[in-house]
Amino acid sequence: MSSTDSALLNAPEPDIEHEALGEDYALTPAFVEKVIDAADDGDGLKLRGLLEDLHPADVADLMGFLTAEHRAVVVLWLPPELLAETLPELDDGIREEVLERVPHGTLAEALQELDSDDAAAVVEDLEDDQRERVLAAMPEVDRAAIESSLGYEEDSAGRLMQREVMAAPQFWSVGDTIDHVRAQGEELPELFFDIYVVDPLNRPVGGVAISRLLRAPRATPLTDLMEPVTEIDVSQDQEEVAYIFEKYHLISAPVIDAAGRLVGQITVDDIVNIIQEENREDILRLAGVSDEGRGSSVPEIVRGRVPWLAVNLATAAIGASVIGWFAGTIEAIVALAILMPIVSAIGGNAGTQALTVTVRALATRELNSSNARRTFVRELAVGLANGLILAPLIGLAAALWFRGEDWRIGLVIGAAMILNLLVAATVGVLTPLTLSRLKQDPAVSSAVFVTATTDFFGFLIFLGLATVVLL
Amino acid sequence: MSSTDSALLNAPEPDIEHEALGEDYALTPAFVEKVIDAADDGDGLKLRGLLEDLHPADVADLMGFLTAEHRAVVVLWLPPELLAETLPELDDGIREEVLERVPHGTLAEALQELDSDDAAAVVEDLEDDQRERVLAAMPEVDRAAIESSLGYEEDSAGRLMQREVMAAPQFWSVGDTIDHVRAQGEELPELFFDIYVVDPLNRPVGGVAISRLLRAPRATPLTDLMEPVTEIDVSQDQEEVAYIFEKYHLISAPVIDAAGRLVGQITVDDIVNIIQEENREDILRLAGVSDEGRGSSVPEIVRGRVPWLAVNLATAAIGASVIGWFAGTIEAIVALAILMPIVSAIGGNAGTQALTVTVRALATRELNSSNARRTFVRELAVGLANGLILAPLIGLAAALWFRGEDWRIGLVIGAAMILNLLVAATVGVLTPLTLSRLKQDPAVSSAVFVTATTDFFGFLIFLGLATVVLL
Repeated sequence: MSSTDSALLNAPEPDIEHEALGEDYALTPAFVEKVIDAADDGDGLKLRGLLEDLHPADVADLMGFLTAEHRAVVVLWLPPELLAETLPELDDGIREEVLERVPHGTLAEALQELDSDDAAAVVEDLEDDQRERVLAAMPEVDRAAIESSLGYEEDSAGRLMQREVMAAPQFWSVGDTIDHVRAQGEELPELFFDIYVVDPLNRPVGGVAISRLLRAPRATPLTDLMEPVTEIDVSQDQEEVAYIFEKYHLISAPVIDAAGRLVGQITVDDIVNIIQEENREDILRLAGVSDEGRGSSVPEIVRGRVPWLAVNLATAAIGASVIGWFAGTIEAIVALAILMPIVSAIGGNAGTQALTVTVRALATRELNSSNARRTFVRELAVGLANGLILAPLIGLAAALWFRGEDWRIGLVIGAAMILNLLVAATVGVLTPLTLSRLKQDPAVSSAVFVTATTDFFGFLIFLGLATVVLL
Repeated sequence: MSSTDSALLNAPEPDIEHEALGEDYALTPAFVEKVIDAADDGDGLKLRGLLEDLHPADVADLMGFLTAEHRAVVVLWLPPELLAETLPELDDGIREEVLERVPHGTLAEALQELDSDDAAAVVEDLEDDQRERVLAAMPEVDRAAIESSLGYEEDSAGRLMQREVMAAPQFWSVGDTIDHVRAQGEELPELFFDIYVVDPLNRPVGGVAISRLLRAPRATPLTDLMEPVTEIDVSQDQEEVAYIFEKYHLISAPVIDAAGRLVGQITVDDIVNIIQEENREDILRLAGVSDEGRGSSVPEIVRGRVPWLAVNLATAAIGASVIGWFAGTIEAIVALAILMPIVSAIGGNAGTQALTVTVRALATRELNSSNARRTFVRELAVGLANGLILAPLIGLAAALWFRGEDWRIGLVIGAAMILNLLVAATVGVLTPLTLSRLKQDPAVSSAVFVTATTDFFGFLIFLGLATVVLL
């Protein structure tokens, strides 16, 4: 709102969109506060005024900033159509919570407004009995679409696709196609970007971008305009689908069943979400965090994180027992206890660097068996070079620090650091490569294993060398 | 190739696409080996046969798997048009290397085939003198387009956009628009998804998805079909542009200059790359790795990683000096040296968990000042809960392990672990929040700072408590 508003008698309705969003299109904290205040006051009319002009994506975003209590109030005052469009945008945890508060009649009506993929994504989150009642309240045709979508595996192309698709037989011209779209507009997807040309068995033989269709004279046969399409198998994993879209810069792609028949389409806007989801999983897994949303409670978060910390506790205990083997050495030279965490820390860091680069290269398929050996050798060379740069620094510092006791402690820590950096490179590359070859997610538990290994060998090499050289 | 191929007399030309790509559309190691063998043999005809049917994205992918020597051979045998289309797909480092090998006349011709954004992205990577010669060899109009694109800041919407755009005046009907597209097709973008309706000053007033245009009768005025468009400012950062596309599921958006005039458009396929790039940066920065591509040499990689390891060395030395303060305590009770790495390791892990979740929430703008306090309190609660679960485990184990010396060592390590987990939660949340408030990247150097802090306090709390309680 501009500062001159108060000077106007007939002040215009404040521009809600403008007020709610900052210049960067993110919700402003001031707007969120305003919603919270209105919810606290139970001022429904004010709430509706604040909410009704928001984009569904912004409503979903807002819900994430609220507590469960405030969400319950906001849901009451959301206009029904806006609620329907907001549902597919919500984080999973929050959606489940919101769905419990919506009467099943309202929900059944709302779902009919959505594309089949969005509607299925919402129904998926319903409790069994709620699901049955909602589906029962829907018209046969919509119910069948949703049930068929839910028949495909989770995270498969079948779940991701929308069944509405614009297909044209091979013998149509540009004019035939435009006339068909004008006549049958209702049954087509709300937005589409490509027309799939199909043979008599409904198998895609090519695609025509609609901007190319528009350019061509009415008499042009579609087969003159069409280009090869990249077909997605209905059972393909969504991560693979995302890779294909990203690599070939696809805007939409036809989905085919086992017999090669066109059963739906996937559009790039769904893919953007998948890419973000997969990236989010990778980054969280590397840090040992299970998937947790904004709406997660403290017990949920603890359940997700404590197992990783417990594994870390066990590996740290193994590291400690290595130190225990050298208790006598440490009693004789207490400087070793002071210096040993340095060796393990640098090893852990270097290992995590190698690990992260490797996990990332596997995720983007920049690493496979044809360059695995080269990557490994390169990481070993990097580890050696890092060691040759850092070892003199720490060696000299340690020798000066403990010159009163035994300057050779500098030699020992320098040598241990070089060796442990080679261990770090080895385990940092081979752990994710091995997991990937075993068809496991290379990010899961890799970090814990890598730092456990660099701790173990860091202590063993440093204290072992010290025992041999210094005692 | 199927196993029956050898039984056929007139075996069909093997389907290159099929042979090169696995079922997951990634290049197969076998195909990469074949290219390497042909390059080693200097068999140009075989190379061309292998390469000519590949998609440019697959050629770019292949280049990433090759060494610089093999790339030099492959570039020689790539058909010119395929080379042109491959250039925008290459990793930056590899593109620079390839560009040095392409004669500037060939390059000037190749660039004219590309959209203005792709051509500018390639020219950007040329050395100054090469750039001048290539631009000089291009027609005036293409040169002007590229120079104007390069006039915008790196990573801005202006750099990302293509200047070709489909605009229509407010008074046009659907029929006018289709006739215009049919007549002027050459000057329009190769692919477009939305038509922007502009006022007489060329400022966008709305947009019409072309699938909606197709659906409407010829006489319908565009203003009846148009919907509000999300305008992108030409100076906006590409990360913000990606956020807007992702949030509102945009397929394309008009780009406007400071006066609000339409100057270009950004399409979602460019955005997918930006999202991957930003995610990649986040994940690498958290691990203390600078951006390094597949083509990076060992010295380049070492230059990127050694600074982080050196910082880590410095912080580890500070941790070591904390241990030094308690040398007397350790000399008296060597069990403390054995156990102390456990306290710091768990603290470091828990801190990294909190840090990663916070960095991620900031990146997706799920965290701002309206829920910062709540997030912080929640993380403290999680830290306390984790501590109350893990402390008894390690406390009991330590008490049993060292029961011969002093069972109270179990109490000390349990208490130290709880306190250090609270430190971890605090520093894990506040470090990225503070960096973000200072307009710095919350991922850069956060991880080093968090583990340095949990090491410091882990040693201080554990050894300090032990000195007070056990001595």
